[in-house]
Amino acid sequence: MSASLGRRALAEAVGSAALVAVVVGSGIQATELSRDVGVQLLANSLATVFGLGVLIVLFGPVSGAHFNPVVTLAAWYTGRREGDGLTARDVAAYVPAQVAGATAGAVLADAMFGEPLVRWSTHDRSANHLLLGEVVATAGLVLLIFGLARVGRAHAAPVAVASYIGAAYWFTSSTSFANPAVTIGRTFTDTFAGIAPGSVAPFIAAQMLGAVLGLALTAGVFGRRPAPARADAIALHGEPELTAPSHP
Amino acid sequence: MSASLGRRALAEAVGSAALVAVVVGSGIQATELSRDVGVQLLANSLATVFGLGVLIVLFGPVSGAHFNPVVTLAAWYTGRREGDGLTARDVAAYVPAQVAGATAGAVLADAMFGEPLVRWSTHDRSANHLLLGEVVATAGLVLLIFGLARVGRAHAAPVAVASYIGAAYWFTSSTSFANPAVTIGRTFTDTFAGIAPGSVAPFIAAQMLGAVLGLALTAGVFGRRPAPARADAIALHGEPELTAPSHP
Amino acid sequence: MSASLGRRALAEAVGSAALVAVVVGSGIQATELSRDVGVQLLANSLATVFGLGVLIVLFGPVSGAHFNPVVTLAAWYTGRREGDGLTARDVAAYVPAQVAGATAGAVLADAMFGEPLVRWSTHDRSANHLLLGEVVATAGLVLLIFGLARVGRAHAAPVAVASYIGAAYWFTSSTSFANPAVTIGRTFTDTFAGIAPGSVAPFIAAQMLGAVLGLALTAGVFGRRPAPARADAIALHGEPELTAPSHP
Amino acid sequence: MSASLGRRALAEAVGSAALVAVVVGSGIQATELSRDVGVQLLANSLATVFGLGVLIVLFGPVSGAHFNPVVTLAAWYTGRREGDGLTARDVAAYVPAQVAGATAGAVLADAMFGEPLVRWSTHDRSANHLLLGEVVATAGLVLLIFGLARVGRAHAAPVAVASYIGAAYWFTSSTSFANPAVTIGRTFTDTFAGIAPGSVAPFIAAQMLGAVLGLALTAGVFGRRPAPARADAIALHGEPELTAPSHP
Repeated sequence: MSASLGRRALAEAVGSAALVAVVVGSGIQATELSRDVGVQLLANSLATVFGLGVLIVLFGPVSGAHFNPVVTLAAWYTGRREGDGLTARDVAAYVPAQVAGATAGAVLADAMFGEPLVRWSTHDRSANHLLLGEVVATAGLVLLIFGLARVGRAHAAPVAVASYIGAAYWFTSSTSFANPAVTIGRTFTDTFAGIAPGSVAPFIAAQMLGAVLGLALTAGVFGRRPAPARADAIALHGEPELTAPSHP
Repeated sequence: MSASLGRRALAEAVGSAALVAVVVGSGIQATELSRDVGVQLLANSLATVFGLGVLIVLFGPVSGAHFNPVVTLAAWYTGRREGDGLTARDVAAYVPAQVAGATAGAVLADAMFGEPLVRWSTHDRSANHLLLGEVVATAGLVLLIFGLARVGRAHAAPVAVASYIGAAYWFTSSTSFANPAVTIGRTFTDTFAGIAPGSVAPFIAAQMLGAVLGLALTAGVFGRRPAPARADAIALHGEPELTAPSHP
Repeated sequence: MSASLGRRALAEAVGSAALVAVVVGSGIQATELSRDVGVQLLANSLATVFGLGVLIVLFGPVSGAHFNPVVTLAAWYTGRREGDGLTARDVAAYVPAQVAGATAGAVLADAMFGEPLVRWSTHDRSANHLLLGEVVATAGLVLLIFGLARVGRAHAAPVAVASYIGAAYWFTSSTSFANPAVTIGRTFTDTFAGIAPGSVAPFIAAQMLGAVLGLALTAGVFGRRPAPARADAIALHGEPELTAPSHP
Repeated sequence: MSASLGRRALAEAVGSAALVAVVVGSGIQATELSRDVGVQLLANSLATVFGLGVLIVLFGPVSGAHFNPVVTLAAWYTGRREGDGLTARDVAAYVPAQVAGATAGAVLADAMFGEPLVRWSTHDRSANHLLLGEVVATAGLVLLIFGLARVGRAHAAPVAVASYIGAAYWFTSSTSFANPAVTIGRTFTDTFAGIAPGSVAPFIAAQMLGAVLGLALTAGVFGRRPAPARADAIALHGEPELTAPSHP
């Protein structure tokens, strides 16, 4: 990662803002245009697949394109013994950037659609089976991201992570938030994609639990991590293309 | 394939569970949100395309990402004369892992949506033209997987197999189960994607027949297999990336 | 192209059958499940995108994956002065295989859905603006296929051609048949995707005209073809992977 | 860029015509087939994703596949100090070609669907929050295109730009015109995708403002541009494949 921490944190903030703007904005557009909730979620999920894939391909080489405190923490945890992994200082810059960005994204979406800029969501999401959905969604996300790195396919992350979220919108009961920053950001809009503030803490707890399960599953399926080899140890966190100007 | 048989079987179990959780879970979500069955199947099929592609790209390097006894058996059959193909012992580990995983996936989906964890499906699927659909669906799947290996394009399998299933949801009358393990797993949920236990045996028989036709078609279109060359003989079963940590 | 003409013609027949089975079958399924014609065409077009991309990636290395007499004729015409292009004998084998395959595909789709195996379509498609749609659809298809070869991107054909047809389903008034073999095949089914026999001749004439326009556009945008260089002159017709067993 | 300016301008004209034909034509088809506006926009946006991706992969090696005066101007501005960037003369050829092409595309779509060839749109799009949508849509587009070039991923532009527009149809309130030539072309059709002439000037002003913001964001996230290195400086404007006939 050749970019300065400032630029990397900016990339995380801009990317998180764009992600939430896509999720919230497409939700508003969909509810304005259709009365079939299935059609609404189709539009919402497809827009997110398209947008998230683009954000990862664009910002991945700068910051790793986490946009997600759970991913940042897991990356720090799994790489903490390697000299070139994410440091605690990186985490302390990334996480606030993600939360601030996610909040700004919700406000921007509201502004684009002429909604009140900030209004607490009244969308209660507190049923227990929704929390199970969040555990599963986050475990799968972590398994995917860290598993891809283990099999040398981190280059497939933009398409794979976006596709995963597209599936998880539908197969999990919670429509797969799987991201504490996005969860917080979505409290600020009282529209289709919002979540009531009272539902946030259990959602984040479920996401944390899911991340732990995801790391355990990664170790189970892909084996314990070998001793760090310098070369690609942080392929996940950023690809070397930014410093290498030309693509072969 | 450098992974131990235990880890490979675990990958097959986790992948099969995830596949059925995607199919069943997205079916439940879709029926909860829309009353247009066309919209329901659109959501169900798109979620499956996204999910299946991700599972193949993630687990392919570990176990070959079969998630399907018919594929495992066909891989064993076509590679039985080659020293490095799938062995009978592998088959004996893969198939139970796939069936157990598929069943767990259906239960997990039910749990995420607050449905009874286990309830036999009452969805009768016994019409003869549905069985023809299963023959066609499975023949096409086998032709695709083994044909891709024959033309040196096994690397395209994640996108190609997922896309095939996305098409087959719609162009076959049975919505393309094409997989005995998934068929069994889907008996345990009385929701959109379920299948009544009484319809299972004919479905599996049709799938077996389809697999035989698919292998025959593969030989017809791509020619008889040449004498085994060590290098890529089992490109289908796993790519060498797991042991080669860095991707160029 | 290392495959024998017999195997190449078989690939064209099987591929054309599968293509029409996808188009007709998904049309029947869609009309059975939804009453919203927009949803029906969404399902029909997405199934075709998925299916066509798979067929091109699978059969391209064998026969070039034309599945379309207009493409075969244009490939013969543009390569006729090169020793290694498609010969008249190839054309004489490909075109009947495509028509026979397309017809079989329609019958197979009818059988899978319990429809009469053969019943002439009553779907009249004779309005003049539909013919303009076919001219545009075919011109675009030919421009795409031969343009990709000219810029050295024939490897992108599976995704690009499938995506093009997905767009053309919607942006042309005729829903883009753009293929005489498929047009003939679709007369044999009186379902969503059928075309009345009386509409066939004008459709094929429009497709031929579109192909000529497409070749003229290709020359205009990409320049006249340089003197043939042995190496990749027929990249369009088949990639060398079939004979090279291993993919790097 | 080895192609003559004449051929490059022709590529811009044909590509812009095709893009608007896709947008307008699929809009007409969708409104003819469905009464659910959500389904209409799903069809419209998916057709555009498919069509735009194809156009970029096909014409990128010839002209850079801008199809958009804002992109052309930004490319000229950012590359103006480099000897091999876009020149003012190029801009003077590209922009009129784009506007003429976009207009022709709208007329062609009308013709294909039996609509009056030219009729001013009555679709008023003058609300302030729509203009904010255009600012955001264009800023994001410029950030994506120039950011991809900065991280050496210009090769991903066909899929990434098409996906971005697919998301922006939904997450911006204006459905993301983000293109002055397309905006002008869409005044000539009184159908789903039209825009009333009176709404054009504010839209274009918003797009210009968005482009400036997009370039500022690009500099912020990806850093100031280094001194030009000959090799890939204009990877954005065209890839060298046209002159290199064979793809490895």
